[in-house]
Amino acid sequence: MELANKYIEENKDRFLEELFGLIRIPSISSIVDHKDDMIKAAEYWKESMLKAGVDKAEIFPTDENPVVYGEKIIDPNASTVLVYGHYDVMPVDPIELWNKPPFEPSVSDGKIWARGADDDKGQAFMHAKAFEAMVKTNTLTCNVKFMIEGGEEVGSPGLGEWCAENKEMLKADIILVSDTSMIAPDIPSITTGLRGLGYWQVEVTGPNKDLHSGLFGGAVANPINVLAKMITDMVDDDGHITIPGFYDDVLEVNLEERAKMAEAPFDEEAYKKALNVKALKGEKGYTPSEHTGIRCSFDVCGIWGGYTGEGAKTVLPGKAFAKISSRLVPNQDNKKIMQLFKEHFEKVAPEYVKVKVKSLHGGQAYVCPINIPAYKAAEKAYEAVYNKKPVPVRSGGSIPIISTFEDVLGLKSVLMGFGLESDAIHSPNENFPLEQFYNGIETITHFYKHFAEIMK
Amino acid sequence: MELANKYIEENKDRFLEELFGLIRIPSISSIVDHKDDMIKAAEYWKESMLKAGVDKAEIFPTDENPVVYGEKIIDPNASTVLVYGHYDVMPVDPIELWNKPPFEPSVSDGKIWARGADDDKGQAFMHAKAFEAMVKTNTLTCNVKFMIEGGEEVGSPGLGEWCAENKEMLKADIILVSDTSMIAPDIPSITTGLRGLGYWQVEVTGPNKDLHSGLFGGAVANPINVLAKMITDMVDDDGHITIPGFYDDVLEVNLEERAKMAEAPFDEEAYKKALNVKALKGEKGYTPSEHTGIRCSFDVCGIWGGYTGEGAKTVLPGKAFAKISSRLVPNQDNKKIMQLFKEHFEKVAPEYVKVKVKSLHGGQAYVCPINIPAYKAAEKAYEAVYNKKPVPVRSGGSIPIISTFEDVLGLKSVLMGFGLESDAIHSPNENFPLEQFYNGIETITHFYKHFAEIMK
Repeated sequence: MELANKYIEENKDRFLEELFGLIRIPSISSIVDHKDDMIKAAEYWKESMLKAGVDKAEIFPTDENPVVYGEKIIDPNASTVLVYGHYDVMPVDPIELWNKPPFEPSVSDGKIWARGADDDKGQAFMHAKAFEAMVKTNTLTCNVKFMIEGGEEVGSPGLGEWCAENKEMLKADIILVSDTSMIAPDIPSITTGLRGLGYWQVEVTGPNKDLHSGLFGGAVANPINVLAKMITDMVDDDGHITIPGFYDDVLEVNLEERAKMAEAPFDEEAYKKALNVKALKGEKGYTPSEHTGIRCSFDVCGIWGGYTGEGAKTVLPGKAFAKISSRLVPNQDNKKIMQLFKEHFEKVAPEYVKVKVKSLHGGQAYVCPINIPAYKAAEKAYEAVYNKKPVPVRSGGSIPIISTFEDVLGLKSVLMGFGLESDAIHSPNENFPLEQFYNGIETITHFYKHFAEIMK
Repeated sequence: MELANKYIEENKDRFLEELFGLIRIPSISSIVDHKDDMIKAAEYWKESMLKAGVDKAEIFPTDENPVVYGEKIIDPNASTVLVYGHYDVMPVDPIELWNKPPFEPSVSDGKIWARGADDDKGQAFMHAKAFEAMVKTNTLTCNVKFMIEGGEEVGSPGLGEWCAENKEMLKADIILVSDTSMIAPDIPSITTGLRGLGYWQVEVTGPNKDLHSGLFGGAVANPINVLAKMITDMVDDDGHITIPGFYDDVLEVNLEERAKMAEAPFDEEAYKKALNVKALKGEKGYTPSEHTGIRCSFDVCGIWGGYTGEGAKTVLPGKAFAKISSRLVPNQDNKKIMQLFKEHFEKVAPEYVKVKVKSLHGGQAYVCPINIPAYKAAEKAYEAVYNKKPVPVRSGGSIPIISTFEDVLGLKSVLMGFGLESDAIHSPNENFPLEQFYNGIETITHFYKHFAEIMK
């Protein structure tokens, strides 16, 4: 790997300048006015791939923003890595909180400051440069494909269909993604799980109009009281969700993996202090990290009904509403859970109300087993650069496209993230430490080496 | 009573025309632009009192709308009836739903159509005319005082203080009020109870900001879920409120009175159909009429928190709010109950949230015993005109000023209402049947006669 490392060292300023070129394109996917910028960013990526040494690169138009694809096949029989990333970024509002213009990248305090510095221009670009270092030094021993999309920040619309249409072209052994973070610069970690999601809106109807709470209160069921009770009954005192069948498909995480996860540092006092709560509240028998990593949640994301203005209005309202979400864990099928909740909510509704349940949104959970070759290769790669074995971490959030890849392409993804919590992604003053950028490039080169060796 | 009846019969068209004069003044107390109309309505009442035969009448300015007072003392040793009513009316919005202009009274289908036709211009004016009939025919055998205010529809601000300042002038044996309704034209009834009220706004705070429901959900208590559980826990499965001490002062209504109340017709099927509910839900051991009449309620009047817009937002909110009200029954002190709730809510709040309770509004319950002379007189009066003994009815609503009268003046009120449910008070197309107007005047003359006899 010395050759590749030397190449990186000699070209580091150029790498940064090239990344800046990408960052300067304000490719905000959620704002229609930036349509042209999306094209420009896609073209910039195509050029970057070609410059880095792919055999061919192509921009695929779609109904949404184009997908940039590139590949280098060194040997049809060699293992293949499919790199996924995105060239779109989040909006910059509130712009007045930025210390510097978000699309004029600069370096200070050892960090790159700009929208997209981390998410995901900085992290995705590391792959272009790691690949380039291997190609230019003739050290690449596996095939590499790139799939860089422009809609991740708006839910990757159409990407699943595009993958299905190009399944043959996208054939690979593993998907490699850098769009997550690690615990700390001195504590490398790999995200091995993402929770799934069920999201519902419920409507509880009592009387056919708002009633005078004096004339009817006590005799007629109040839909807000009923909704409160229905919500309450769905979680028992131990924090278990009471919907029959809810946990049927949950695969318990084995003790070995739980022990590994427990190595990730967690300071409960600091965590509580940061949120200003006196105590945490989670499912009995699990730690806080496990609550968000490997267990389901049941949260009311919003609730409304009746009079919510100033002062007092004595009303017994006709309707009450809530938005309810549940984070799911690997092997739970979100469609099945969506249906289970709906049926249960309708079934337990008392006869004095009518209920409606609307499924709003869902996503499958994802898990990356820690014994597959690509994970082992990633582990070795981090160890080579950070001198520590990375901690496997289950994230509580969801990246629905990752489970879509598994469904459509039949491929697992390894989430080699180099971001830090302090990078302020999606917020003003997004940044990415230079050290993480360069360490990331180096780590990825190690990944290729180890992955090819293991897969031999 | 023949003389008085004859007088009423001979003057009925003039009575109606005089009422119309009052109705034509748009005295809407909640709209500042109508300040001058309030003065005009007060003056109209003063003139009406003088015309009807009071010894003196006076308009008392207050910080709010003026109070009109008049009196006729036939004998300082005779019994005294204090008539209470109000000259202010509710707004007329939505104006487009009225079939005729609200302040241009007319008669059709045997009803007076106008804002205030019933509430309370029509009903209060019956007292002026009943009094006039007794005076002009020399049949009045008790003293009569009038207190007509202009702020009932906005909560009678300042009237309690005014009563306290004029306690000597207002000395009486009973207060007589026509501002309620009876069950049906052929089922006379007297409202013998009004529930009290406690009203609170609660705030439940979890984390110090809205959190990502994926990254934190399951480990951090969600304030909406917590609020839902706290609300739920406050009422048990039998519909009893679980706040310790809540029922301590409740005087159970005796079986005799419950039996009398049960004579009031109640068609549960029709009631459910009108509200479009399949079942009613109330405290175990009581009938629906008792639920609203003699038992406490616990209603969430409003609830809000988290994301309530379109679609799905995966948020674990920092705060949740609710407006909660409880209707109280006689002998419960609303201030004590307000405090009990606050202390209980604060005490049962789990350690993972902070709560705030704000007392917004309250009112004492009121009960008119059915064995006092004035009630007996009212009973006989209805019987004389409607040929049926009136049913005592406990109303679920609250008229706080009635319990204020009891506190400040030490006087009970007899609520001789002649309105009907179909009168659409507070709504478009308010109306008052002519028959009820004239029967009301006649019934009131009978009340004076019987009251004076019983009190002798």
